Amino acid sequence: MFNLPRISGALDDAIRHAIDSKTKPLGALGILETLAAQIARVQGTLTPSLERCHVILFAADHGIAHEGVSAYPQAVTRQMVANFLAGGAAANVFARANGVDLQVVDAGVAGDPFDSPELVSLRIAAGTRNLAKEAAMSGEQRDKALRAGHDLGAGVTADAVAFGEMGIANTSSASLIAHKITGAGLDSLIGRGTGLDDEGLVHKRSVLARAAKRTAERLDAHDALREYGGFEIAMMAGAMIGAARSGSIVLVDGFIASTAALVAVDLAPTLRDYLVFAHRSAEQGHHTVLAALDARPLLDFDMRLGEGTGALIAWPVLKCAAAMMSQMASFESAGVSGPTDDRTA
Amino acid sequence: MFNLPRISGALDDAIRHAIDSKTKPLGALGILETLAAQIARVQGTLTPSLERCHVILFAADHGIAHEGVSAYPQAVTRQMVANFLAGGAAANVFARANGVDLQVVDAGVAGDPFDSPELVSLRIAAGTRNLAKEAAMSGEQRDKALRAGHDLGAGVTADAVAFGEMGIANTSSASLIAHKITGAGLDSLIGRGTGLDDEGLVHKRSVLARAAKRTAERLDAHDALREYGGFEIAMMAGAMIGAARSGSIVLVDGFIASTAALVAVDLAPTLRDYLVFAHRSAEQGHHTVLAALDARPLLDFDMRLGEGTGALIAWPVLKCAAAMMSQMASFESAGVSGPTDDRTA
Repeated sequence: MFNLPRISGALDDAIRHAIDSKTKPLGALGILETLAAQIARVQGTLTPSLERCHVILFAADHGIAHEGVSAYPQAVTRQMVANFLAGGAAANVFARANGVDLQVVDAGVAGDPFDSPELVSLRIAAGTRNLAKEAAMSGEQRDKALRAGHDLGAGVTADAVAFGEMGIANTSSASLIAHKITGAGLDSLIGRGTGLDDEGLVHKRSVLARAAKRTAERLDAHDALREYGGFEIAMMAGAMIGAARSGSIVLVDGFIASTAALVAVDLAPTLRDYLVFAHRSAEQGHHTVLAALDARPLLDFDMRLGEGTGALIAWPVLKCAAAMMSQMASFESAGVSGPTDDRTA
Repeated sequence: MFNLPRISGALDDAIRHAIDSKTKPLGALGILETLAAQIARVQGTLTPSLERCHVILFAADHGIAHEGVSAYPQAVTRQMVANFLAGGAAANVFARANGVDLQVVDAGVAGDPFDSPELVSLRIAAGTRNLAKEAAMSGEQRDKALRAGHDLGAGVTADAVAFGEMGIANTSSASLIAHKITGAGLDSLIGRGTGLDDEGLVHKRSVLARAAKRTAERLDAHDALREYGGFEIAMMAGAMIGAARSGSIVLVDGFIASTAALVAVDLAPTLRDYLVFAHRSAEQGHHTVLAALDARPLLDFDMRLGEGTGALIAWPVLKCAAAMMSQMASFESAGVSGPTDDRTA
């Protein structure tokens, strides 16, 4: 499942040459050129095409929500799933605006299973256990979540796939996973999530410090997932690998999704070349995770909503990059002069 | 022509309340919320709509090109107009990818008039005079360019209008205009344009320093335009005011377009509220012009191509912002709980 083929570098020189021959000063499209080269590389062609993007939202609950680490009650996870299904959430709005398909997955929301044909039910359990006190999930549950995500991701037929999440208290889960995998200071990874006040943040820090002490200082991705969980995070990590296996660009959203990417790259290092990072979240901790992944996100909008919203807003940028590579004229084909050495020209 | 009505602030409180009631943590959509509020304000409604964007590319030549201040020969302006008309330039590609209408205007390209029904001919002359030696245009030519731009912009029926430009040596023109209007140091406003090497940059600085000495230390927008010209810059400034008059959001591209905005805001200060800044150009000088306009652009992609490419790439972000405001559910309408004060919820 984690054995992902390395992308060939055979076209690299030809890709660079094709971009440099376009009717624009050398390098004048900045990171759009880097992005175009990456897309061409993933697709193995000098004329890449990005037409369809598919977004999967994984929702799950977290036992640690009962420790009061979020500004919102746990019931909001379930209510937001209903909002997704009704088409009223930010993710729905952006998906419609940008022509993206959106799918909602119950990875383990608290309470009963949903009764909706529009929702994909892959629930592992009715929320994780309280990671402050014990492992969030069993090894078996983790493997089941990774596998379910992988198979879902591998089954998507789209040029790009993005993943979003909904899960009250999941920044707590992500902070601990990132802390154990990267070794970065825990406090630098803990933010206000949905909007904790100062007092709430102090409380969240103390709960997570306690949770961190339960286990060894560093953990590998497998153990970090089991201990600090998040069914949606495990499933998303699997789905990223699956989507890459089917040749899709993987568009990574904010803090939670980037932490899932950190897990996934730990499991399948060759995944990194498929990842495009959509935006820099305002949630404290995202910069540390991005640095660990050597990632420079496209957008910086002070957003911190999750739901794949950053990825959804970034998607048209990817389309433009691919179209530049495939459709833009070259100096030769357009009969445009190159730079001159003659200063009086 | 320059008397633009001030936007009413009557809806401001209602706009803020509507955004804060959406199903997301307070402020979680960051600058997308600021953008949505601006769009709602310009349209005077709590349910703004951005469906159509129209881009106008103004092309013109500059007498100062004969001083060797650009890495490309002057003929490239004309060749790129042909490239626009053939659909092969970056601007065409991005316009198609994002569903934007594109129009090309000859504001004063060197040589004969174009013989193409697809091109709008508003040519003032076959390029400006050499601004290093004399005023780039007459007061009459300037007024004609401003008026032609204004009427073109006012006649566009689109929710948003963006402007791009093509004109070899027009960064020289923009640097001097910005220098004279803002009083910022000339060298801080001079960059490599289409890609000058170190030697070329030194030469460009010395030519522009000479050109700056021709006139008083500071000039108002009218005089700066006449002295340092750019038919495309004058026309663009007029078009921004015209487009705002017809109620459109004005999407501002990079260094040249922002300098045109600087001119336009000097002529019609109420224009500022209609302007959305698309991207931060890699061209030295843009940050100074943006600071003078108190502008924070949406994107930062190290781009420096012009042609409205930054605006074209940013357009879907504006669509998302408007859609958020109009289509996203409120906590009440979706039955989602707000923040809790109960840490054990």
